[in-house]
Amino acid sequence: MQAVSRQIGTLNVHTRYLVSAVDDYLDSLKATLPESITNIVMTCSGSEANDLAMRLAKQATGGEGFIVTEDAYHGNTSLVTEVSPSIIKQGKLPAHVVAIPPPSSAVYGEDIATGFAAKVTEAIELLWERGFSVAALLVDTIFSSDGIYTEPRGFLKKAVDVVHNAGGVFIADEVQPGFARLGEAFWGFDFHGVTPDIVTMGKPMGNGFPMAAVATRSEYLASFCSDVGYFNTFGGNPVAAAAGQAVLDTIQQENLQTNALVMGHYLKTRLQSIASQSAYVAEVRGQGLFMGIDIGKADNKQIPDPLKTKQVINGLKAAGVLIGAAGRFGATLKLRPLLTLTQSEADFFLDAFVQQV
Amino acid sequence: MQAVSRQIGTLNVHTRYLVSAVDDYLDSLKATLPESITNIVMTCSGSEANDLAMRLAKQATGGEGFIVTEDAYHGNTSLVTEVSPSIIKQGKLPAHVVAIPPPSSAVYGEDIATGFAAKVTEAIELLWERGFSVAALLVDTIFSSDGIYTEPRGFLKKAVDVVHNAGGVFIADEVQPGFARLGEAFWGFDFHGVTPDIVTMGKPMGNGFPMAAVATRSEYLASFCSDVGYFNTFGGNPVAAAAGQAVLDTIQQENLQTNALVMGHYLKTRLQSIASQSAYVAEVRGQGLFMGIDIGKADNKQIPDPLKTKQVINGLKAAGVLIGAAGRFGATLKLRPLLTLTQSEADFFLDAFVQQV
Repeated sequence: MQAVSRQIGTLNVHTRYLVSAVDDYLDSLKATLPESITNIVMTCSGSEANDLAMRLAKQATGGEGFIVTEDAYHGNTSLVTEVSPSIIKQGKLPAHVVAIPPPSSAVYGEDIATGFAAKVTEAIELLWERGFSVAALLVDTIFSSDGIYTEPRGFLKKAVDVVHNAGGVFIADEVQPGFARLGEAFWGFDFHGVTPDIVTMGKPMGNGFPMAAVATRSEYLASFCSDVGYFNTFGGNPVAAAAGQAVLDTIQQENLQTNALVMGHYLKTRLQSIASQSAYVAEVRGQGLFMGIDIGKADNKQIPDPLKTKQVINGLKAAGVLIGAAGRFGATLKLRPLLTLTQSEADFFLDAFVQQV
Repeated sequence: MQAVSRQIGTLNVHTRYLVSAVDDYLDSLKATLPESITNIVMTCSGSEANDLAMRLAKQATGGEGFIVTEDAYHGNTSLVTEVSPSIIKQGKLPAHVVAIPPPSSAVYGEDIATGFAAKVTEAIELLWERGFSVAALLVDTIFSSDGIYTEPRGFLKKAVDVVHNAGGVFIADEVQPGFARLGEAFWGFDFHGVTPDIVTMGKPMGNGFPMAAVATRSEYLASFCSDVGYFNTFGGNPVAAAAGQAVLDTIQQENLQTNALVMGHYLKTRLQSIASQSAYVAEVRGQGLFMGIDIGKADNKQIPDPLKTKQVINGLKAAGVLIGAAGRFGATLKLRPLLTLTQSEADFFLDAFVQQV
């Protein structure tokens, strides 16, 4: 907050005028990314970032097809809505978009990596039959709106290899998992040990200040910019850079990635213990401070119960805890606290939660 | 700046949690809009706003066709780039988009209103021939990137009537002209005495804070939302509302609309006097604090001279004035100073400018 106020008090302009604060921030951000990802375009929102990422993927591959998960959400622009099945209420996906089931053991059994990759292969073939070659596999690397899936670590690698072999690129949507939340890694793709071709980021990037970005290989941007220009009034303004730098500095100085790891482990252990004794809590998934808690029916907790989930949400709200639901049935609680979470805050939540389940 | 800092220090959340500061701001904003425009969706950028506006227009009309001006710029998303000829370097517009010449006397002669409306009629017929019915006429109401065209006041009315009679809607892109800049009116459509069906706004809305919006009739939003959901993490956050409210309050308390009128009149009169004595300044157009200055060749100033324009821009930069170029040839200086412009600041610019031309 102080960083934003200070920079607003100093100077706020768009990127047609170059400002060193922006360069410095981009250097800091690049230091967190793979070496092959050398270029960053700042935007205002994750939606704008994914919109641009999709166009970069099409330009880079010559393909038109996109593979996403069944309950994915990638943003609100026209193009991005096409690859966001979770927000489409009427009608179906366009022919150039194929949605595959999320990487859950319920769908793929024990070998999620192989099963998920096989579905990607099927999707590529289906796109071919429809006359499209694949442009990209686009996934939120923690599959947040699908219900949060992180295990087994590394399962994404086979699917990414399949897409690369078919000439497509891998877009890692890090809007939700990115910025140290997973504890084990700064980014979701890092957690899985894969190198994306395009990375999109947003939400936590400015800790509430509206900012987002696309990071990619330089050749993808060069090719794109020869056909259309791209300018973003607010994207990359120095106030955003100040907010973004403050976020990176705070993560480092306050060891928030380690805190996410430690507190995430504590929360998950306690939640799994609660699950083992609860008639409603079917499963606890996730990594670091990003967890999904499946709520099921009292007589068989393996059957998702959206009504009970709503009751838990309202009960927690009355107790002073705000939480939302995700997943196909709206029966997965999405637990995503502040990275600064303390043990007493975690206990406050756990005490409130155990009353509900 | 103080308003932003205060709200950041208090609370910053997204619109899933309702905050009275946001409601109050939306009421203030609605008070500036026509009575028929009852609903506002907050977004992060003008691009997101125009992206949503285009989808609302398609949903409301069942049409797919868009009519824009030849050098229009409406934003950077995939959908909006399709209607932004000025940013497309390679290839042509898609078949469902028809670009018409901007409302200049060079194109339409003395009766710009009739000529421009006739071009809209032609565009509607061309869309029909291509198999599309018209969804919307979408124009920046000051035609900024086309070169700034405001005269004669009211010329838009005939074109809007033509679109309405064909079943299309009129989208007023107020990202550049809106928020009191034109002096005579708070919005560009108001200046022309027309009532839009959809209004988009951005840039000056938060005075540098990234925020934008779509305002429209309630029935258009209701229809759209029955098919897809729309959520925007940063759009409508209380910090944006605080920034937006501060902008509206400052415009009112400091009489900035009157200042735009008075200082705009002063600037235009002085610039026209400079033009009459200059070998390079061909024409001065515009309204309030938004003017276009055509720069031409020394031997015939009616011929646009982008090179001389660049020299003027660099000369002004050396003198401490930042200015950009617009229009088909990049030979129109786009003069758009702060709404707080004082006479001594205006004189500072005029003194620097007269040295260059």
